[in-house]
Amino acid sequence: MLRPSKRSDVASFIAMDIMREANALAAEGRSIMRLEVGQPALAAPEAVRRAAAEALEKDRLGYTDALGQPALKERIAGHYKAAYGVAADPAQVIVTAGSSGGFVLAFLACFEPGAKVGLAEPGYPAYRNILKALGIEPVGIPIGPETGWQLNVEAVRAAEKKHGRLAGLLVASPANPTGTIQSPASLADLIADCEEKGRWFISDEIYHGITYETPAVSACGRGDHVVVINSFSKYYCMTGWRLGWLVLPPALVRTVERLAQNLFISPPSLSQFAALEAFGECEELDRRVAAYRKNRDILLEGLPQLGISEIAPAEGAFYLYADVSGLTDNSIDFCRDMLEEASVAATPGLDFDPVRGRRFVRFSYAGAAADMEEAIRRLKAWV
Amino acid sequence: MLRPSKRSDVASFIAMDIMREANALAAEGRSIMRLEVGQPALAAPEAVRRAAAEALEKDRLGYTDALGQPALKERIAGHYKAAYGVAADPAQVIVTAGSSGGFVLAFLACFEPGAKVGLAEPGYPAYRNILKALGIEPVGIPIGPETGWQLNVEAVRAAEKKHGRLAGLLVASPANPTGTIQSPASLADLIADCEEKGRWFISDEIYHGITYETPAVSACGRGDHVVVINSFSKYYCMTGWRLGWLVLPPALVRTVERLAQNLFISPPSLSQFAALEAFGECEELDRRVAAYRKNRDILLEGLPQLGISEIAPAEGAFYLYADVSGLTDNSIDFCRDMLEEASVAATPGLDFDPVRGRRFVRFSYAGAAADMEEAIRRLKAWV
Repeated sequence: MLRPSKRSDVASFIAMDIMREANALAAEGRSIMRLEVGQPALAAPEAVRRAAAEALEKDRLGYTDALGQPALKERIAGHYKAAYGVAADPAQVIVTAGSSGGFVLAFLACFEPGAKVGLAEPGYPAYRNILKALGIEPVGIPIGPETGWQLNVEAVRAAEKKHGRLAGLLVASPANPTGTIQSPASLADLIADCEEKGRWFISDEIYHGITYETPAVSACGRGDHVVVINSFSKYYCMTGWRLGWLVLPPALVRTVERLAQNLFISPPSLSQFAALEAFGECEELDRRVAAYRKNRDILLEGLPQLGISEIAPAEGAFYLYADVSGLTDNSIDFCRDMLEEASVAATPGLDFDPVRGRRFVRFSYAGAAADMEEAIRRLKAWV
Repeated sequence: MLRPSKRSDVASFIAMDIMREANALAAEGRSIMRLEVGQPALAAPEAVRRAAAEALEKDRLGYTDALGQPALKERIAGHYKAAYGVAADPAQVIVTAGSSGGFVLAFLACFEPGAKVGLAEPGYPAYRNILKALGIEPVGIPIGPETGWQLNVEAVRAAEKKHGRLAGLLVASPANPTGTIQSPASLADLIADCEEKGRWFISDEIYHGITYETPAVSACGRGDHVVVINSFSKYYCMTGWRLGWLVLPPALVRTVERLAQNLFISPPSLSQFAALEAFGECEELDRRVAAYRKNRDILLEGLPQLGISEIAPAEGAFYLYADVSGLTDNSIDFCRDMLEEASVAATPGLDFDPVRGRRFVRFSYAGAAADMEEAIRRLKAWV
């Protein structure tokens, strides 16, 4: 009997497993507070949905250019001028099937099998798992309170000393699951260090726009070794539309086009028409960010009352990464019981940190304020 | 200066390059006859688009389960009963981001780096290029008039003798670019041979439903080493919606779920709502197939008048694979000139067969009948 390949034996994305279980419970009629998956509770803005409805009437919705509709590539390039004052060439913008598609394309284009790529631990689990499936070795670089829960040059160099040459560095800011942000100086240092050492610098900017104190700085335009990844999923509230983008150095564009033609054909058509309207909706979207901040504050007030008080500084994104070691020594069991018994879904830290994650839980607060309050109530009764 | 990885140096999907060029010419106002890309000219059926419009109003369009909405998985499983009389378990059905997403998942799940996979040459170029990008070695098995333009057990065994053990065999029926179909007996022989030799059998059934003489037979339900790949793109006319599916043996389901969670998160939401209505639209869709047949006949009558008379028997799909060696010894230049000078887009055979493709051109006939006639008129004036 044939068996699955060894290389496909990657970890599950635990948040997605929990989402499936929570979906099944909700389908049975149970009220579940959804703090597990990183997605906004609200749909895409009205103008975006209207653009989709119009395209649905008027367009045949065939394949687009593999790298995306020229008009959308231009809108995305224009966004860099408007939001960061950085000129971006539409020819270097690649529309992708979510940031997920962007990661697959960027990792294949940049890294040979066996290459090592540094990334923060805790961090988004799919980085590690996609890299592994593609034969690339993720090198987890531990971060914590001592590094302000972000990567810095010292930590990267220490990892390289320990694990051998890194062919690339992957930096997320704001980061998942911690919500922390790279300062402009630290980001510049990391990029300069990568340039000096001949490493690709992959900048995951998917939570840009969702920041509470200072805006995040983009790595766009910082040289020929920088790949920027972003998406319409988070700030623009378009998770299920599966649309993201890359900004690539010129040397990678044709390579990524060839990969995209073969691996994806083209990104979803209707989503591309809809996304043309997304950049005009910042007023509405910023109101949503203000609501996330309120949600954050509800959790930051409520969780300590449950004995959960060590929480990474949540400067952006919509996650709290909380030390639950006062309540459990196994966050997987803890989250399972919490879902079963308290009807609150959250994600165990092991998803983000295979080493120390047993002590942590990630709470996603992109839902309704009432749900945050109800979750705290349920948890108080349960703990 | 950093360079793209060697493994990302795959061939372009030439049809997509030509589509981009044809799109650009059309955007300048030129009338181009589009016989290059394999996609229906008509939009998805009315009921499908209506379902999308309703979901757009009512649903927030977030992530779905990584393997797809349970309701859609059930509809797809039901399709196997209705269309082939084969029972399929919804738990073995995986909804994917187009058949493209299905290939990436299936290839990763089945094959280690360095494994060899047999496939017909000529064949769909993305097979070869995805396999290469994932470190798997495609083994082209030449087919032609002598094998009825389809694979058979002898050809597979001969390839294995020459190239070493094959870990899998990929069979498309109806096939792209030839339009040929596996007879039930030949398909059964190939599957049995793979079972005997311990090879995965990957059955690309994306052109099922588009057949002109006898319907194609599905490999679904033929054992624990069979992976079926299909899509809503072709028969259901939903190319730009990027939605396909796999039917997997039980041993691969959890592996593919873990891969899908990490590499794709979930298939596009809106497309999944729309696709729920697709299986009810066969009457309308079969009328479209009847129109393809008329298109085929227009080309089969017209091309010989241009000196193109050796054409693979087009029993299904919507392609003619034609020997153009009477007119050119370089189908790439031929297709470029044809687009520039005659404003007719078609795809050079090198896309499908790196060895003998220089002598062939693929004409896609899923457009309007008037376009087929106009293309023949233009080509007559041009040749």
